[in-house]
Amino acid sequence: MPKVVHTVAELHKILQPLWRKGEPVGFVPTMGALHAGHVSLMKLSRAGGNVLTVVSVFVNPLQFAPGEDYDEYPRDLGGDVKVARDAGVEVVFAPSVAEMYPRGFVTWTDQDKITEKLCGEHRPGHFRGVLTVVLKLLNIVRPNNAYFGQKDYQQSVVIQRMVTDLNLDMKVHVCPIIREADGLAMSSRNVYLGPKHRTEALVLHQALVRVHELATGGERSVKKLYGEVKRIIGQAKSAKIDYIAIVHPETLEDVNDVSGRTLIAVAVRFGKTRLIDNVLVE
Amino acid sequence: MPKVVHTVAELHKILQPLWRKGEPVGFVPTMGALHAGHVSLMKLSRAGGNVLTVVSVFVNPLQFAPGEDYDEYPRDLGGDVKVARDAGVEVVFAPSVAEMYPRGFVTWTDQDKITEKLCGEHRPGHFRGVLTVVLKLLNIVRPNNAYFGQKDYQQSVVIQRMVTDLNLDMKVHVCPIIREADGLAMSSRNVYLGPKHRTEALVLHQALVRVHELATGGERSVKKLYGEVKRIIGQAKSAKIDYIAIVHPETLEDVNDVSGRTLIAVAVRFGKTRLIDNVLVE
Repeated sequence: MPKVVHTVAELHKILQPLWRKGEPVGFVPTMGALHAGHVSLMKLSRAGGNVLTVVSVFVNPLQFAPGEDYDEYPRDLGGDVKVARDAGVEVVFAPSVAEMYPRGFVTWTDQDKITEKLCGEHRPGHFRGVLTVVLKLLNIVRPNNAYFGQKDYQQSVVIQRMVTDLNLDMKVHVCPIIREADGLAMSSRNVYLGPKHRTEALVLHQALVRVHELATGGERSVKKLYGEVKRIIGQAKSAKIDYIAIVHPETLEDVNDVSGRTLIAVAVRFGKTRLIDNVLVE
Repeated sequence: MPKVVHTVAELHKILQPLWRKGEPVGFVPTMGALHAGHVSLMKLSRAGGNVLTVVSVFVNPLQFAPGEDYDEYPRDLGGDVKVARDAGVEVVFAPSVAEMYPRGFVTWTDQDKITEKLCGEHRPGHFRGVLTVVLKLLNIVRPNNAYFGQKDYQQSVVIQRMVTDLNLDMKVHVCPIIREADGLAMSSRNVYLGPKHRTEALVLHQALVRVHELATGGERSVKKLYGEVKRIIGQAKSAKIDYIAIVHPETLEDVNDVSGRTLIAVAVRFGKTRLIDNVLVE
């Protein structure tokens, strides 16, 4: 079984000897409710030359906007520890909210521009919460390698940018999206979906597969690709589109045509469940 | 002579072997124009068990509000290197603006509450700039001990708070104010003062000495102490008061009476020169 620790002090007792010897540490930050997507990150850390992998499990209140699903977010530390064990992870770090944000906490980190687009536009304060907690976790764990999923594409961009901008000395790995057999991107929020929405949610992947095919086949028109994504998602009656973005993969600025590397990303609500997915056109 | 380096890569070549061996590094971040106040910090680092002391010299554009003295701020790297040499400092890190804020830089750190008071109220964006550059510098140098002057009292509070909140693993030392023989607190901005303002500026220290005497003698009334500071500063005809603060030394909240530890801080403009000073009532 992995060691499960709840405080920074306990974690540092484990990590200090490795830091001293300069032995590489891998880190997979999560909000728990671990699924095959998280497992793929843990396995990449295990295979990536790290002598030890830390998985953090922390549902970060700072990154939920008012009215979002902080209270409902699935929590199952016992189950998560078993998943981590099966993936060969050595340490699970599961701090309390008070351990992360003690009384008097007032510091936060944010970004201009890239946090204001896509999900940032629809989830006020979300990336400020993400950046602040990830910065704290990176400072606590001091990994050589940190692993994030491409499913949360914008998150991976803002974190890479923060690591560069704040001179953090580590490598950020952005790892492929893991999907259910029918194409739905793995997400801890998929458990919210009832049977009808679960079926309808397949339109996300279908739309992205279709426009990826069109774009790699030579279609450059943003308008046409946008229209096609919208048409396919529209086939699901309950789908409410937050955004369809066809943008530069680093600046997240709108592109005029799909000539270079381009990100196509969507956020769609089915009832109260908000799902995101994306594809990169290379 | 100290080694003078201009890039993070050069600096890391020097520091890597020390980090590996776990040997303590001391750090004195400055904006240059080094004076006896800075020298006292360097000497504390040298005497504090650090095997090497790094002094950074960087006039940080982010911490100057529009219309402030960024362009006029005194710059003399050659002179600074000599001061550092005489203080026994091993490394001077003098990065360019492009090295610290390359194209695409978008990340910043800020705080609620404590950055909004005193100087924060009068210098919009100032502490956001201070916190961002200090966080970068601490990540670059990774010191065991970092030294700041009590003259910039609020700065020392917000930095200590950031180090705690963001789980940075180092000790922040806040070191005594160094003064000219006549009591004026050392500051790189003192060179701006013409002879008349230089003489008038003595009222700051005089006012603080007087209220410190009153408070330690048992005077608890904020109103009386405030009045006394205002009266003494008012003796200088050119003095324009930005603020007189009688506050809790950590939260910087106004106190009702001077019963516990209390900070008395002032910011006053003489012509275009803005000076700050403070005293702690224990």
